[in-house]
Amino acid sequence: MFHAELMEIGRKAKLAARQLAYTSTESKNNALLAMAEALLKNEQEILKANAIDVQAAEKKGLKNSLVNRLKLTSKGILEISKALREVVVLRDPVGEGEVWTRPNGLRIQQTHVPLGVVAMIYEARPNVTVDAAALCIKSGNAVILRGGSEALESNIVLARVISEAAEVSGLPQGCIQLITDTNREWVQQLMRMNGYVDVIIPRGGAGLIQTVVQNATVPVIETGTGMCHAYIDQYADYEKAIPIVINAKTQNPGVCNALETLLVDEAIAVEFLPLMGEELKKYHVEIKGCPRTCEILPFALPAIEEDWVAEHLDLILSVKVVPHLDAALDHIYQYSTKHSETIITENYSRAQRFLKEVDAAAVYVNASTRFTDGGRFGFGAEIGISTQKLHARGPMGLKELTTIKYMVYGSGQIVK
Amino acid sequence: MFHAELMEIGRKAKLAARQLAYTSTESKNNALLAMAEALLKNEQEILKANAIDVQAAEKKGLKNSLVNRLKLTSKGILEISKALREVVVLRDPVGEGEVWTRPNGLRIQQTHVPLGVVAMIYEARPNVTVDAAALCIKSGNAVILRGGSEALESNIVLARVISEAAEVSGLPQGCIQLITDTNREWVQQLMRMNGYVDVIIPRGGAGLIQTVVQNATVPVIETGTGMCHAYIDQYADYEKAIPIVINAKTQNPGVCNALETLLVDEAIAVEFLPLMGEELKKYHVEIKGCPRTCEILPFALPAIEEDWVAEHLDLILSVKVVPHLDAALDHIYQYSTKHSETIITENYSRAQRFLKEVDAAAVYVNASTRFTDGGRFGFGAEIGISTQKLHARGPMGLKELTTIKYMVYGSGQIVK
Repeated sequence: MFHAELMEIGRKAKLAARQLAYTSTESKNNALLAMAEALLKNEQEILKANAIDVQAAEKKGLKNSLVNRLKLTSKGILEISKALREVVVLRDPVGEGEVWTRPNGLRIQQTHVPLGVVAMIYEARPNVTVDAAALCIKSGNAVILRGGSEALESNIVLARVISEAAEVSGLPQGCIQLITDTNREWVQQLMRMNGYVDVIIPRGGAGLIQTVVQNATVPVIETGTGMCHAYIDQYADYEKAIPIVINAKTQNPGVCNALETLLVDEAIAVEFLPLMGEELKKYHVEIKGCPRTCEILPFALPAIEEDWVAEHLDLILSVKVVPHLDAALDHIYQYSTKHSETIITENYSRAQRFLKEVDAAAVYVNASTRFTDGGRFGFGAEIGISTQKLHARGPMGLKELTTIKYMVYGSGQIVK
Repeated sequence: MFHAELMEIGRKAKLAARQLAYTSTESKNNALLAMAEALLKNEQEILKANAIDVQAAEKKGLKNSLVNRLKLTSKGILEISKALREVVVLRDPVGEGEVWTRPNGLRIQQTHVPLGVVAMIYEARPNVTVDAAALCIKSGNAVILRGGSEALESNIVLARVISEAAEVSGLPQGCIQLITDTNREWVQQLMRMNGYVDVIIPRGGAGLIQTVVQNATVPVIETGTGMCHAYIDQYADYEKAIPIVINAKTQNPGVCNALETLLVDEAIAVEFLPLMGEELKKYHVEIKGCPRTCEILPFALPAIEEDWVAEHLDLILSVKVVPHLDAALDHIYQYSTKHSETIITENYSRAQRFLKEVDAAAVYVNASTRFTDGGRFGFGAEIGISTQKLHARGPMGLKELTTIKYMVYGSGQIVK
């Protein structure tokens, strides 16, 4: 049995989705603009609610980095509002598609349509509340939001402000709803509301995502963990390799597309590793090395099995010397979470083998893994990065929030 | 803990998938041709095994229609072999895709790649064993098959014959595997083998499919139930309406795209229903009508709630008179399984409203719902008809057995 209040949220979302499915792009854009304006108009109230969250988080001794993600400022609200306006100019995938005609004259039109009701479960990042709602609305979906409890006060105000703006501008009631009960049982129920929720997207730590994957009966899009590798081939150009490794490791070490493990071809290890090591030192990156790496770089700490398995999400790099490309491919096959992998090489055939044989959402030659991102891929925005293979893989933009419908134009055709 | 033998099947499939992912279309086609030949060569052995299944099924008192689906003949094997050859000529989606270049020169190539390991759970239809294997192989996937236990002897021989032929022709060992243990616990485990199985496709009755949806942690593609409606608008051309209803109801009543409920606009009910009723009588179709229908057609039996909810899959048609298009849309919204729905009308705006507002995999104007089929849509073949919204919707061909990989060609790019 579902909680009555949750059922009511589900029912409202479903009703809203029915109408949103054929709401024009113009109406959706007007709503997004109204939402952007409403955020600025209600800045004081949002900041006040956020201050309560931040104070409670600090009192609870939450890590500094987490408090920073939670904190909103005047400038932050302006940015969130701007991001909303950027969604307005994105192309609406709904109604786009392909068409073909069968020999019997049936015209089959494969058309993108909204998924319906999208449920988002995410951490204590109030900006996600607005970003996710905007992308769902633009793609014609109703959205049920469930953010981290540390951001509850902020989310309550944000969700009220944007949903009211959307509804006043003409979108159906219930198109944006926030779950305000922080009881975990609600989340457990939410992920089993087949018939009300069409897809659930968890965004956050591995624990949250695994809970959803293990317990949901509603279809899930898994996002997340990036155990990303760079392989420095014996034919690598060091002038590309070193900046790419530094960029992938240090530009933002806490994110899923950051580099975690460096694999170095034995043939160049003695030459390359000292150069790389010096540069990593400058950026205060700690090296956890295989025995051979530790021989070459005396300041490296010995790696343990765990260093190859789990994301550091910090200024720590695991380094392994491998005898050849095949060994690199085997290591990646064993430890990759299939997010982003890169090879640095000037050798054509090796580059092609890496591209073909590595199974990951994004496979790079001579570029930083940090590019795996909706914005950097040119999608304009992203609702997450899928690490599963079904429905969406890699950065998910608006199109990934749609499904298809076959509209078939006949003139009396029957099956023979 | 997984059963050791099942784990071994999973491991083998995963290894095979790693190699199959970059096996050329030519090699896959050669394997399909070898499989087609091997079926003919081993006809006697296949027929012998099938006779055991059929005998047991008859002894068990299985329904005639089920025994017929189970039974293989010389001609049947020839057809299965021919179907294999037809898969050879289908375009291989692997390696196809789109490419674009970012302002920084990064070339991003969105490429179709195989899903990996596909698990199929299906009923006692030996032809599905071969069809499913062929489509998986062509799209570069390893496949784990689990057919209905009544077809076990047939499936054992079929799977051995085709997997041996595939392997002899050069495909990796384990690319086609059959689960021969009929213990249901194996299926329960199979659907939780994340990391080994990339997708599970159940094909069969509603019970089987719901069991998989409720219990799988591996991503599922739901197929199946089709509670299909035809709405006869007041502006319908009866010369289209009557043949379409007859075709959709009677051409093959046991399938998911067959018509189950007829909705008739009140404005024409008194004129249309007697004509339609006479024609349905000729085809021995029993009518379960709403009170108004029973008034107009004295030979109709009164419908109960269940008649609007569940597939008859038989020569029975539920008929309801509705006051207007909105009422038809509401009825469909409430009872549709989102498979296939059709409107019969000459009115442009009503046709467009129906196409836009009905949420189903396939929505028709003036055509039979029976067209929802991979072959009839022009996909050449189908592995099933998805009734979910994620990943695939409607008939699934080879492309739906792939995912994407972003191959990114750089020249030293880093994120700024």
